[in-house]
Amino acid sequence: MSIDFSFMDQVLSLHADDMDVVVQPSVPWMSLNEQIKDSGLFFPVDPGPSARIGGMVGTSCSGTNAVRYGTMKDWVINLTVVLADGTIVKTRRRPRKSSAGYNLTNLFIGSEGTLGLVTEITLKLTVVPQETSVAVVTFPTIRDAAAAAAKVMRAGIPVAAMEIMDEVQMAVINRAGSTAKKWKEVPTMFFKFSGTKAGVQENVKLVKSIAKVHKSGNFEFAIDAEEQKTLWSARKESLWSMLALREEGHEVWSTDVAVPLSRLPDIIEVSKKELDALGLFASILGHIGDGNFHESIMYNSKDPKERAAVEKCIKDMVDRALEMEGTCTGEHGIGLGKKESLLKELGLDTINVMKSIKGALDPHWLMNPGKIIDLPA
Amino acid sequence: MSIDFSFMDQVLSLHADDMDVVVQPSVPWMSLNEQIKDSGLFFPVDPGPSARIGGMVGTSCSGTNAVRYGTMKDWVINLTVVLADGTIVKTRRRPRKSSAGYNLTNLFIGSEGTLGLVTEITLKLTVVPQETSVAVVTFPTIRDAAAAAAKVMRAGIPVAAMEIMDEVQMAVINRAGSTAKKWKEVPTMFFKFSGTKAGVQENVKLVKSIAKVHKSGNFEFAIDAEEQKTLWSARKESLWSMLALREEGHEVWSTDVAVPLSRLPDIIEVSKKELDALGLFASILGHIGDGNFHESIMYNSKDPKERAAVEKCIKDMVDRALEMEGTCTGEHGIGLGKKESLLKELGLDTINVMKSIKGALDPHWLMNPGKIIDLPA
Ligand SMILES: Cc1cc2nc3c(=O)[nH]c(=O)nc-3n(C[C@H](O)[C@H](O)[C@H](O)COP(=O)(O)OP(=O)(O)OC[C@H]3O[C@@H](n4cnc5c(N)ncnc54)[C@H](O)[C@@H]3O)c2cc1C
Ligand SMILES: Cc1cc2nc3c(=O)[nH]c(=O)nc-3n(C[C@H](O)[C@H](O)[C@H](O)COP(=O)(O)OP(=O)(O)OC[C@H]3O[C@@H](n4cnc5c(N)ncnc54)[C@H](O)[C@@H]3O)c2cc1C
Repeated sequence: MSIDFSFMDQVLSLHADDMDVVVQPSVPWMSLNEQIKDSGLFFPVDPGPSARIGGMVGTSCSGTNAVRYGTMKDWVINLTVVLADGTIVKTRRRPRKSSAGYNLTNLFIGSEGTLGLVTEITLKLTVVPQETSVAVVTFPTIRDAAAAAAKVMRAGIPVAAMEIMDEVQMAVINRAGSTAKKWKEVPTMFFKFSGTKAGVQENVKLVKSIAKVHKSGNFEFAIDAEEQKTLWSARKESLWSMLALREEGHEVWSTDVAVPLSRLPDIIEVSKKELDALGLFASILGHIGDGNFHESIMYNSKDPKERAAVEKCIKDMVDRALEMEGTCTGEHGIGLGKKESLLKELGLDTINVMKSIKGALDPHWLMNPGKIIDLPA
Repeated sequence: MSIDFSFMDQVLSLHADDMDVVVQPSVPWMSLNEQIKDSGLFFPVDPGPSARIGGMVGTSCSGTNAVRYGTMKDWVINLTVVLADGTIVKTRRRPRKSSAGYNLTNLFIGSEGTLGLVTEITLKLTVVPQETSVAVVTFPTIRDAAAAAAKVMRAGIPVAAMEIMDEVQMAVINRAGSTAKKWKEVPTMFFKFSGTKAGVQENVKLVKSIAKVHKSGNFEFAIDAEEQKTLWSARKESLWSMLALREEGHEVWSTDVAVPLSRLPDIIEVSKKELDALGLFASILGHIGDGNFHESIMYNSKDPKERAAVEKCIKDMVDRALEMEGTCTGEHGIGLGKKESLLKELGLDTINVMKSIKGALDPHWLMNPGKIIDLPA
C-alpha cells in the first residue's frame, strides 16, 4: 500500500519573529525556502533537490550544509504523527528548547515511517548569512583532499560546507554539461563560506593555507551569486547527472557510510582503489566535514555477475566503516538493503530495543513493515 | 534505592583527531574540560558547576553556551546503557553522524534515569575559540532587556552566550561578594562573544547598536581572562549565591520554562510582576537566546501559606508558558514536581506513547519509578 501525500503540500504558518515555520509533509525543502525568502530566514537542511520535509524526517537526512548547521534532527521543533491505531499525537508545543519528558520528536525522526505517519512539522529557521562565497580547488590525490578536510575541521574553521568529489564525479559534471565551465578531471573540493564579509575573508585565508600544505591547486571562486548557484547545483545534482548518463539496462547504486573524522582519508583511499578495480563507471563524493561519504556505481542490472561484484564492493566498504567504529549509513537510512549491516553495527541487543519500541507503538507491524528491522518470526 | 556512581569518574579515552572523548557518567563537565585542555578542544555544554555527565544526560541539560552550541542531545555520539533486565546496549558506534535505525541515544537523553542506567558516554568536542570577550550591560526595565535579546537572535548575530538577570539577582551577586566589583542593582545582560579577533569585534559592534535602541547603558568589558572567568562564574553560581543567603528554615524554589522567542518579553514582564507581588526574595534570570528563563524564590518552608503562594505563582508562570505554546521545562526536566504540567503540555495521548515506551523497556517499572510519568494504577 502506498499513500499519496502530494496534496499535503502547504506551508501552514510562518512565525518569523520566533524563527520557525509549520509545514505539511509534502512541502519540498527547496520550495519552502522559496516561499519564505522575504523573511530573511531559511531552512538549512539540504538533501536531494527533490526531497520533501516528510521524507527528510523519515530518513533523518542531512546535506551539504550539515557541517555548519547540523542534520534534520537539529531542526525539528515538533511533529504531529498518526500512530498505527489512528491516535494522533503532537510531540511538543513550540519552544526552541525543552527537557519535558521523552524526546519523541527525535524518535520519529529517522524511523523511516515505521512508527507513524507524520502529518505536520514545525521547523526551526535561521537567518540568511550576509555574505556567501563558493570556491573550488583541486588536489593531486583524493587522500590529500581528505587529509586537508580533516585539518580544516580540527582547526575549528567554520566552513559553511565542504564537499569532496573524485575525478570520475568531475567527469560526470563535464559530461552532463551542467556548468558552462570544463573542469579538470582530478580530485576536487567544493567549499562554501558564509557569514559577515570580514568573517568570510578570514575563513577563506585559513582554509587556503591548510589546503596548500596538502598540495592543493589554486582556489577558483564563483564570480557572482548566479555562478555560485550553478556550481553548487552541479555538486548537488551529481547523482542525477550520473543517472542521466546511464545506458540502457544500467542502474546506479548509490550508498553512504560515515566514520570518525580521522579515519576518513584511510577509508576513502582504500574504497577508491576497490571501486577502480571494479572497472565500472563509479565515483566517490562526500560531506567530508561530517566524516560521511558516498559511492555511486553504474552497473548492468541484467548481468548477475556484475551485480554481485558491485554488491561485494559495497559490503566491503560498509564493513570497513564498521571496523573503524563508523556507521553503515550517515544519512540515507537502512530501508530494506542495510538491515544486515545495522545488526552487525549495533548488535542484537540494541536491535531488540528498537524492536520492542516498534512493538509498543505498532503492535501489528502495520507501518512500513520490514523496513529497518525484520518482522517478528 | 540509590546507587553510588562516584567511582565511575574516569575519562576513558580522548580521540583528539576525531574530536570526541569517551567518559564515565560521574565525570563532572568542569573536570572533563580541565583534563582535556591541552588538546585545544572543549565540551561546550555548561549547566550547574557541580553537574556530572550522567546527570546531564538524564536531564538533557543545557546552559549558557546553548544559544551558540546547542544542548546535551547535540553533543552525545553514543551511550552505553544497562537496561532494567540487566542487558547492556550501546546505542551507536563512533561516527559524528548517523541515520542507522531509531535514535536511541536521544531517547535515553532526557529520560531522567527511567529507561536505563548510563555507564559510558562518547561526547563530541569542539575547538576552543581563538578569542573570547565578556561584556555586561544594564537596561532600564527587564522588558527592554528581553526585547533587545530577541532582536539579537532575529538578526542572526552569533553571540556565544546571552544571559539576563533582574535587579534582585544582581543584588544577590553583590551580597554574595563573588566579584570584586559592586554592581548596579538593575536589569542586566551578560554577553559572551567568541570566535576570531575580527569576528568578535564585529559581533560586539552589532549587539551594541541593537542594545542602544533598547535604551541600554554602556557596555563594560572584562579586562582579562581572569575577570571574564569571575564575571561568568558570578552568573553561573547565582543559584548557589542565593542558597548561601538563605535564612534558617528557608528554601529556594528554582524552576524554568521556555517559550517561542517572540513571547519572551511578555512572559518575563508578567512573571516578574507576579514575583514582586509575592513580597519575597525572588529573582528572574535566563538563557534568553533560547527563549528559556528561570525563577528562584526564597520562602519559609515552615509556613504553609507562604509555600502555597509560591506554588501558585510558579504554576501560573508554567501555565502562561504553555498558553504561549511553550514548555513547562526548558532544561531542568520533569522529575516528580512537573508531571501534571507535562500532561497539560502534551496531552494524554502523547503521555501514553511515553508510557508504552517505558513499559516496553522496563516492564516492571524498576528504573526511577514515578519520575516523569505516573506508575500504572
Ligand atoms: C541528487 C540527490 C542528492 C541527494 N543528496 C542527499 C544528501 O546530501 N543528504 C541526504 O541525507 N540525502 C540525500 N539524498 C537522498 C534524499 O534526498 C533524502 O533521503 C531525503 O530525505 C528523502 O526525501 P524524499 O522526500 O525523497 O523521501 P522518501 O524517499 O519519499 O521517503 C523517505 C522515508 O521517509 C518515509 N516517509 C516519507 N514521508 C513520511 C511521512 N509523512 N511520515 C512518515 N514517514 C514518511 C518513507 O516511508 C521513507 O522511509 C539525495 C538524493 C538525490 C536524488
Ligand atoms: C548553580 C546551578 C546552576 C545551574 N544551571 C543550569 C543550567 O544553566 N542549565 C541546566 O540545564 N541546568 C542547570 N542546573 C541544573 C543541573 O546542573 C542540571 O540539571 C544537571 O544536568 C544535573 O546534573 P547532576 O550531575 O547534578 O545530575 P543529578 O541531579 O544527579 O541527576 C539528574 C537526573 O539524571 C539521572 N541520572 C543521573 N545519573 C544517571 C546515569 N548514570 N544514568 C541514567 N540516569 C542518570 C537522575 O536519575 C536524575 O533523574 C543548575 C544547577 C545549579 C545548582
